Amino acid sequence: MPEFTASQFAACAAAIAQAGRDFSDRGWTPATSSNFSMRLGRSRIAVTVSGRDKGKLTAADVMVCDLAGNAVDTDARPSAETLLHCQIYRRCPDVGAVLHTHSLAQTLASRIFAPTGQLTLAGYELLKAFAGYTTHDAQMQLKVFPNSQDMHELARLIDVYLDEQPIAHGYLIDGHGIYTWGKDMLEARRHLDAFEFLLNCELELRKMQR
Amino acid sequence: MPEFTASQFAACAAAIAQAGRDFSDRGWTPATSSNFSMRLGRSRIAVTVSGRDKGKLTAADVMVCDLAGNAVDTDARPSAETLLHCQIYRRCPDVGAVLHTHSLAQTLASRIFAPTGQLTLAGYELLKAFAGYTTHDAQMQLKVFPNSQDMHELARLIDVYLDEQPIAHGYLIDGHGIYTWGKDMLEARRHLDAFEFLLNCELELRKMQR
Amino acid sequence: MPEFTASQFAACAAAIAQAGRDFSDRGWTPATSSNFSMRLGRSRIAVTVSGRDKGKLTAADVMVCDLAGNAVDTDARPSAETLLHCQIYRRCPDVGAVLHTHSLAQTLASRIFAPTGQLTLAGYELLKAFAGYTTHDAQMQLKVFPNSQDMHELARLIDVYLDEQPIAHGYLIDGHGIYTWGKDMLEARRHLDAFEFLLNCELELRKMQR
Amino acid sequence: MPEFTASQFAACAAAIAQAGRDFSDRGWTPATSSNFSMRLGRSRIAVTVSGRDKGKLTAADVMVCDLAGNAVDTDARPSAETLLHCQIYRRCPDVGAVLHTHSLAQTLASRIFAPTGQLTLAGYELLKAFAGYTTHDAQMQLKVFPNSQDMHELARLIDVYLDEQPIAHGYLIDGHGIYTWGKDMLEARRHLDAFEFLLNCELELRKMQR
Repeated sequence: MPEFTASQFAACAAAIAQAGRDFSDRGWTPATSSNFSMRLGRSRIAVTVSGRDKGKLTAADVMVCDLAGNAVDTDARPSAETLLHCQIYRRCPDVGAVLHTHSLAQTLASRIFAPTGQLTLAGYELLKAFAGYTTHDAQMQLKVFPNSQDMHELARLIDVYLDEQPIAHGYLIDGHGIYTWGKDMLEARRHLDAFEFLLNCELELRKMQR
Repeated sequence: MPEFTASQFAACAAAIAQAGRDFSDRGWTPATSSNFSMRLGRSRIAVTVSGRDKGKLTAADVMVCDLAGNAVDTDARPSAETLLHCQIYRRCPDVGAVLHTHSLAQTLASRIFAPTGQLTLAGYELLKAFAGYTTHDAQMQLKVFPNSQDMHELARLIDVYLDEQPIAHGYLIDGHGIYTWGKDMLEARRHLDAFEFLLNCELELRKMQR
Repeated sequence: MPEFTASQFAACAAAIAQAGRDFSDRGWTPATSSNFSMRLGRSRIAVTVSGRDKGKLTAADVMVCDLAGNAVDTDARPSAETLLHCQIYRRCPDVGAVLHTHSLAQTLASRIFAPTGQLTLAGYELLKAFAGYTTHDAQMQLKVFPNSQDMHELARLIDVYLDEQPIAHGYLIDGHGIYTWGKDMLEARRHLDAFEFLLNCELELRKMQR
Repeated sequence: MPEFTASQFAACAAAIAQAGRDFSDRGWTPATSSNFSMRLGRSRIAVTVSGRDKGKLTAADVMVCDLAGNAVDTDARPSAETLLHCQIYRRCPDVGAVLHTHSLAQTLASRIFAPTGQLTLAGYELLKAFAGYTTHDAQMQLKVFPNSQDMHELARLIDVYLDEQPIAHGYLIDGHGIYTWGKDMLEARRHLDAFEFLLNCELELRKMQR
């Protein structure tokens, strides 16, 4: 029994490429940064190949990895960050898509809130865009991790955090952008949309005269 | 005699979908937020179905409600906010379209001015974009209501306000965005355009060194 | 001998419509504001009809006026601001196009600098985009007039200013935007582009920590 | 043996025109500013003709110069700035493309950091977009030169700097924008993308409340 069919892979590659085009149009994927993935069958993921322009992805820019981040049936090189995608798929069986982008707001918020290690989003109607949130009168803590070129070290910090905070829809990495996810690409994109909007609100408020 | 014809509904659905595409392109409808409606016949409205991507609406994403906000001839679920649309149609017989969007400027202004409950727009030539305004040398008070998940409570506050202030072209809800309207979709869109522009002016002024 | 040919009018209307689309795409023409004109023959101008969406102009949205601002051969209503266009064509025989837009930067700059009545642009390489400027090491004074609904009063103030300052490429009106011009549409658009860019620079500098 | 073939020139002209369209869409080439070039054979370059709208380039807007900046086989006038392009090609045999744009962020950063003569970019993951950078935990000094209409004077200052700092991916000129380069157009564009993003980060940080 194969892990997945060719047409399941094709559907994932198409959804990933479309997401890349839309995010690139909005300026969220500068200078070949960012990576996107979707669950494929029970123990595989489809993920963007490292170093490609995310606004111009084709199926040739999407590869298959196992849940340990190893390339499957290809010489293409996965991004080091693939390990962070796999971590979410292993921990959260309901997650179907993981998105990492690198917008100005995501990077700025990660820098500004890195010293405290988190930022609070409260009182926004758009919190209802996140699965499980039914009112604006709620609080979401968005964690900010220090950056590292050692993905295993970073993943260890994230494991500790997700053990304590099982209901999380994303996190920031200092100077590096956001990771977010959802049960499918549609939900993951809605979460990313909402995070981008709310981060922009918080940054803009910090620019205003009191 | 039917309430409305199929082609009247089709015309409304097309205008609503076009508005959604244009607003979405401008970033005013993040994460499936926002809702739009038009009067349909004497006692019906065409309104966006809850939870859809407002940049990708088709006629299947537009439903019919009565002026109490009840769905007519469909199992589709209207947004809770449909009650706020219906309130305007019942109170203002000349209103033909109501628009609720959720842009960054609308959300920021609603947060900043929620404590005082209003913001004043004065001295702008673009005030002449609003029906009834013929000079820049005028003032408009834009009311800001506290947010609530109880639409009936919110509608009561809005009723009191509109009793006192019958000439109003819109209002803000804290952390939630704007509601605006006009005699038809063209006028409602012009009002929304002008509000968005003037709110941006006011916010930008608050970012400048004195 | 006719004042102008049908195909001269058609060429002007097309250039005006294209300018409108481009400016609208950039957000410079909110809520049916703005107006554009071109010289037509010796004593006529082609100018936008009042109240139209400047991003969707066709030849039907462009009318002919004489140099006193009177409509010629049409019942269409020229904007009151047509008088300001005509003033430039009468005073400056080399001017072939006049543009009035209403961008956020133009409106903000007009509000911030209205009390002093002018703003200074100096040290920018892009000053070389203006006819007659050959170095960045130059200064341009951009005048800001108070707004008025009485176009004749406004035109008198502008006359006095242009008598004193014959080399001018534009001016701002408080809360209302910019007027700029050039020997043809290409030059007028280059001047508008440069003004918009430089005004944005000046506004952004005022938002920065020192 | 010819210096280059017609189809090599055509490929360069197409890449240059595409870059111009993309940069213009992003607002980086206001009012006919900016210039782009690519190495052509051993001792020629393809470079944009002076004064053209960089968003609408065709092969007719791209000319050939030698490495001293002299026009080859054409009456078209190269920009004075062509000398700065040639300086890079002469000094750096591996460079295949040089890009000069004039965005708001590049111009603002050049003005703000001109007094100190440089700005430091540190701690950003996107530093890895620059050839030779493998970690976010690095620093890049971006030099800012005073502006001058005398290109030879400017080039002398740049020569001194590049003698001291052989690993450089670009520099700013006060009030004028950025020069950046790469081994080919793809790399040069990635460097420009990264500079634009990081300059925006630095500017935005300066607008925030502490």
